[in-house]
Amino acid sequence: MPEFLKLLSPTEALTTFMQALSIQVEPEVIETKAALGRVTAAPILAREPLPAFPRSTVDGYAVRAADTYGANETLPAYLTLVGEIPMGKAPGFRLDASQCALILTGGMLPLGADAVVMVEPARGPLPVSGDIEILRAVGVAENTLKAGEDVTLGEQVIPAGKRIRPAEIGGLMALGITHLEVARCPKVGVISSGDEVVPPTVVPEPGQVRDVNAYTLTALVEEAGGQPCRYGIVPDRADSLNIVAQTALRECDLVVITAGSSASARDLTAQVINNLGTPGVIVHGINVRPGKPTILAVCNGKAVIGLPGNPVSALVIAGLFVRPVISALLGITQPKPLPSIPARLTLNLPSQAGREDWVAVRLISTNSGYLAEPVFGKSNLIFSLCRADGLIRITPDVTGLSKGEMVEVKLL
Amino acid sequence: MPEFLKLLSPTEALTTFMQALSIQVEPEVIETKAALGRVTAAPILAREPLPAFPRSTVDGYAVRAADTYGANETLPAYLTLVGEIPMGKAPGFRLDASQCALILTGGMLPLGADAVVMVEPARGPLPVSGDIEILRAVGVAENTLKAGEDVTLGEQVIPAGKRIRPAEIGGLMALGITHLEVARCPKVGVISSGDEVVPPTVVPEPGQVRDVNAYTLTALVEEAGGQPCRYGIVPDRADSLNIVAQTALRECDLVVITAGSSASARDLTAQVINNLGTPGVIVHGINVRPGKPTILAVCNGKAVIGLPGNPVSALVIAGLFVRPVISALLGITQPKPLPSIPARLTLNLPSQAGREDWVAVRLISTNSGYLAEPVFGKSNLIFSLCRADGLIRITPDVTGLSKGEMVEVKLL
Repeated sequence: MPEFLKLLSPTEALTTFMQALSIQVEPEVIETKAALGRVTAAPILAREPLPAFPRSTVDGYAVRAADTYGANETLPAYLTLVGEIPMGKAPGFRLDASQCALILTGGMLPLGADAVVMVEPARGPLPVSGDIEILRAVGVAENTLKAGEDVTLGEQVIPAGKRIRPAEIGGLMALGITHLEVARCPKVGVISSGDEVVPPTVVPEPGQVRDVNAYTLTALVEEAGGQPCRYGIVPDRADSLNIVAQTALRECDLVVITAGSSASARDLTAQVINNLGTPGVIVHGINVRPGKPTILAVCNGKAVIGLPGNPVSALVIAGLFVRPVISALLGITQPKPLPSIPARLTLNLPSQAGREDWVAVRLISTNSGYLAEPVFGKSNLIFSLCRADGLIRITPDVTGLSKGEMVEVKLL
Repeated sequence: MPEFLKLLSPTEALTTFMQALSIQVEPEVIETKAALGRVTAAPILAREPLPAFPRSTVDGYAVRAADTYGANETLPAYLTLVGEIPMGKAPGFRLDASQCALILTGGMLPLGADAVVMVEPARGPLPVSGDIEILRAVGVAENTLKAGEDVTLGEQVIPAGKRIRPAEIGGLMALGITHLEVARCPKVGVISSGDEVVPPTVVPEPGQVRDVNAYTLTALVEEAGGQPCRYGIVPDRADSLNIVAQTALRECDLVVITAGSSASARDLTAQVINNLGTPGVIVHGINVRPGKPTILAVCNGKAVIGLPGNPVSALVIAGLFVRPVISALLGITQPKPLPSIPARLTLNLPSQAGREDWVAVRLISTNSGYLAEPVFGKSNLIFSLCRADGLIRITPDVTGLSKGEMVEVKLL
């Protein structure tokens, strides 16, 4: 099957592909402390308010705010110190009018108190008995956190489909949520094909090259939150590729096949993918460089992606399509933008109108920000990517970018 | 020991701290396929050129370029097809004048050939015998990769101190480098202190709070490439904290202590750190919000960092200081900028001149790019960070940022 004649842009291709996919992996329960990078499978609700009790945010005196009204440097208010609130314990007493109590940051406000008068640490140790001179009025709730001010009982604290960062782990721990339901890591099968491809451990004969794609792609899958599974190197023969692809499709949530580099090998991949299940190939050929001969398919509900054999094309296109499918499998509803660095382009980059180009660039730090310098050398060399810090996108609606223009460098 | 009176900016504090540190972890040898995110401990040299042989970058005919000179649609050159080059094998013949050979993308050029005439796949299967009509001249090396064009024998392909991304794994595999020397993951000891702090599994009594910092910080350490090690919760007593801190310092490459929240608990941390080894505390107090009471110390050659007890301050400051120390321990010589997203601020943010502020913001996607909306609520609530996508920095030289201004949102 030849590539489709009317090529979609990467954005159109992704939209078309995603509309044909409606899959999501099932949830599993894991420990919160091991949840970094995982994705919530259900909204998480607070089973208690946070803070659980009113707390001081400073070192000072717990007071009734009304007792301090009008106090200033020349006309202080005088309050009777009735005690010290120990850290980690309830105060054990109630504050009456004209009374105050010593309280440290994080301490629990006694009943009756509704504000804290801050004392600068520079003033030395705080007196613990006698009358306390208050030189400044405080408002109700000043220097305190109310119970439930961070989170109220029953509030949704983390939505479903959210990737867990250090902050979320902290928030869950604060609420005593030590286990949570996350999406299982999607299994992603990676198949390398090509008669010329040998494993990296082998010394290639003339004409042979070592397998690169299986390893760049499994690393990318790992970064994206998937569980990669390598199915080895398959020769460019329909029967061999069929068998391996069928196994991978059965065992995995997503299958990625890197084609041999020739047109016939790519057609073979498309044919094998169409045999895997219905509806089969949805997009064949995308108006993008590198990566034009990309195949996007859905076989019996599972995504199958045919990537170009060239290692640079395969990695760039995997970023555009494999990564979003993994996000979708994980149930990430609103994927965050790829992190990028703004930089100034060091030279003119012509491109073909109607085609989207991705160009590898190196970042150079200067006093006035970063420069983006396109990496020299032919674009289909793997080390051109190793020398690069990121990629810049030339959209289909322009015929290139100009030297000095600000660009967004998507970090590799 | 009270906080120093003259507070350094975060940038000054980091410079001072880094100058006092000269430590780096030792290397270890690991498998390349498991090296994602690790950092090279030595420069990596190519033990062979890449490609190892001259290759075609297209499907077409291998030719001597000179035989095609002058050829065009009206006056084609005719070359004798002498064979087909199988994928993954040496051609087994030499190309003489006026000859050509069928070659596929990635195929090895025969001796004598110095260019490839591309044939569009749309033209159907290529003839494999007879005379071939060449309609266009090609230059020497056109549509080919020379041996060594990506990498020459002995060339340094990856410098020391570089974090391994999918592209580097691919490049190493292409060269048959299946093992490499990387920096061991630095062990980072994390100690929580505070009389009010209980483990997340415990239902807190009134006045108690669950430990958050131990878990946010170990997650951050993991993200940064360190190996976290939790030393539990220690009460605010010099003897207890001393013993635990000494053990952590002996066992780890970097120790992070989160102080109790009160001024006295913070002073206790500084005192304990000074007892751990020389020179002890180097920076005590930084002109930053949140995180003013930060302690940076070097004890017998190892870094010790005292973080504020407040979970938000602890996490923000860990990003500014713990992360760079881990990078330094890993031998990363040129840390890449933190990934960020450019966005437009939704409201005015006043700040105090001379102080650096970090403000948590949420990103809102619009047709004209992202908006950065400061997260409401008091800044010292852990869920304010969970609701945020990133942080924006207000530098010490300004008195705030204006609504509508473009800001760089450093992703959390």
